[in-house]
Amino acid sequence: MTALPSPAPAGALFGTAVVAGVGLIGGSVALGLRQRGLARRVIGLDASMDVLRDAEALGVVDEVRAGPGDWLREADLVVLAAPMRALGPLARALAPHLNPAALVTDVGSVKAGIAAELERLGVHQFVPGHPMAGSERGGVTHARAELLENAVWVLTPTEATPLSALSRARALVEALGAAPVVMPPQAHDDLVATVSHLPYLASLALTHLVARDERLSLLAAGGFRDLTRVASGDPRMSRDMVVENRAPLRAALGRFRTQLERLEAELDAPEALLAAAEEGKRTRDSLPVVRRSLLPRRHDLVVAVSDRPNQIGAVTQALGGAGVNIKDIEVLAVREDGGAIRLGLETPEDAQEAARILTGAGFEVRGRG
Amino acid sequence: MTALPSPAPAGALFGTAVVAGVGLIGGSVALGLRQRGLARRVIGLDASMDVLRDAEALGVVDEVRAGPGDWLREADLVVLAAPMRALGPLARALAPHLNPAALVTDVGSVKAGIAAELERLGVHQFVPGHPMAGSERGGVTHARAELLENAVWVLTPTEATPLSALSRARALVEALGAAPVVMPPQAHDDLVATVSHLPYLASLALTHLVARDERLSLLAAGGFRDLTRVASGDPRMSRDMVVENRAPLRAALGRFRTQLERLEAELDAPEALLAAAEEGKRTRDSLPVVRRSLLPRRHDLVVAVSDRPNQIGAVTQALGGAGVNIKDIEVLAVREDGGAIRLGLETPEDAQEAARILTGAGFEVRGRG
Repeated sequence: MTALPSPAPAGALFGTAVVAGVGLIGGSVALGLRQRGLARRVIGLDASMDVLRDAEALGVVDEVRAGPGDWLREADLVVLAAPMRALGPLARALAPHLNPAALVTDVGSVKAGIAAELERLGVHQFVPGHPMAGSERGGVTHARAELLENAVWVLTPTEATPLSALSRARALVEALGAAPVVMPPQAHDDLVATVSHLPYLASLALTHLVARDERLSLLAAGGFRDLTRVASGDPRMSRDMVVENRAPLRAALGRFRTQLERLEAELDAPEALLAAAEEGKRTRDSLPVVRRSLLPRRHDLVVAVSDRPNQIGAVTQALGGAGVNIKDIEVLAVREDGGAIRLGLETPEDAQEAARILTGAGFEVRGRG
Repeated sequence: MTALPSPAPAGALFGTAVVAGVGLIGGSVALGLRQRGLARRVIGLDASMDVLRDAEALGVVDEVRAGPGDWLREADLVVLAAPMRALGPLARALAPHLNPAALVTDVGSVKAGIAAELERLGVHQFVPGHPMAGSERGGVTHARAELLENAVWVLTPTEATPLSALSRARALVEALGAAPVVMPPQAHDDLVATVSHLPYLASLALTHLVARDERLSLLAAGGFRDLTRVASGDPRMSRDMVVENRAPLRAALGRFRTQLERLEAELDAPEALLAAAEEGKRTRDSLPVVRRSLLPRRHDLVVAVSDRPNQIGAVTQALGGAGVNIKDIEVLAVREDGGAIRLGLETPEDAQEAARILTGAGFEVRGRG
């Protein structure tokens, strides 16, 4: 006997949602579902009791389960959010228990393989997905609904995906605050090979160049730190990702080498290299991910703070008391004896007003944005 | 008649310091000299009246000059801080007016050329230098003394540099809060080719890969943004830097290609690739520039904030009022209707206490570091 999925409450998209694999992404999906009232209840499924305990204690899910079973028939949404290497086995373990009407999606970073696997398993309402969001630090304790907000979330339906499933998946992604982008699995894999997997390999190659020379490590500054940040991710997850997508990655590596060779040749053609540098800056500055991140920096102040305690509090209190709304804040230099804080204000007028208030309160204000 | 350099006051290292080229780095040096009382007066020399006006208005320098002249004889410290392409002409313009006893240094990012030029000009007390500090945004308005603090500052004496000049330069760098590292000019240039100029070219090549495909731009996420940040720097300055250092850069490109080829081959040897990924992470996480930046992140809290005004102020006020000292703060997600803030606390106890206070004040606290 097949139980009906529990009905979604008024306004909610789903009745019972199951998040299988409650890590950074799964946990963030679960939090989004709960905080935005998108499901009547959210069940976290994970093989690790520690993860389940954390997920419950942090209020990430309503209920927890340690393994699949017939309880899964109640779910009308199942999100496969295990690490990529575990997605196939997870799908195989869950498939016999799924309600045929349930929307099933995953969050893996390579799509062709898992899409084919779910087709093989006969999971009908399946829409492979990839939220383009992450964090330097993984695990359910770092999960937050905001991680997914404004993120591009690729949905990669196959020929077998019903259009009704695709529109439900779209609605889910939009309701979580993310931006759905639809394309075939292989198109996705080709694109992420260039924008995600190639950058990882390049970053890893750079770290290997400095690995055996302490003088190189010593001279590595902020630029090198930025370029190698992705090499600091979980090694096994990164390895699995590039191995799974190795064919498109090889093609991207070929194109990258061609670009590098052209730039190397232009070291002898300074005018051409300047044009390339200008084109590169234009391209990079117009990336959606960059435009968004730079937005709140438009009206900046830099405030020097001394070695007295809680200067961050003193700065924000001075402005809060005067009704000036701080939109962004960043500690530029942290030292035992003080540092500098960058404040992002909403308007030029706010920035001017904030500068006036802080100067009046005895702070040194520099760097008008 | 040669005027004597004006004597340094008690405790100061220099009497009259001249910063020639008052941009981000020159301005930061000038601020450091002033704020730390290292010179009796600091004169800013720049060809741009706008820059001089800003430098004076912001209190970056005591006095300004629009061109070289015999007034330079009073200087016992001259810092050449023009963009790299202007360093040679600047040195030639200043050399006839310099006091032979003055310590002369520069801040260019490639050292062999300017070192040879100053030798040719017969500038005796010359110590080429390169503070490894920068910022996404240049110009005197973003200058701050803190930029140089804890930065590695390479000094590259030549065979002709007197040891007395080197020890004065060392004292200057240390007094500005930076860490002097001494090596020959060519050794410096070889090292920065790998840790700075190669990463720039790699970053530029990546931006060119996405330049003609909007789908690629759309899927470029945080990792791609980090890897291409250096491609957003000033195109002319970046171009000048890599062209000037093209011979060592070509050698570094060769080594980079070898690493990439090895990693590409290991796409078919997953165990070897995992070892490479692990080694890369270890190397990257142990870089001095990374260890420092991660330090304040040890005891973190993530606080969700709602759409009410000035939630940053409310968070810091709650903690400040209770005497909890915030060491670091970062806005993780900025949206019209709220977001999340990461707080860095000094000790686990502080983090616990802060979580207790904020929860009590009605905030949602997640992600225990």
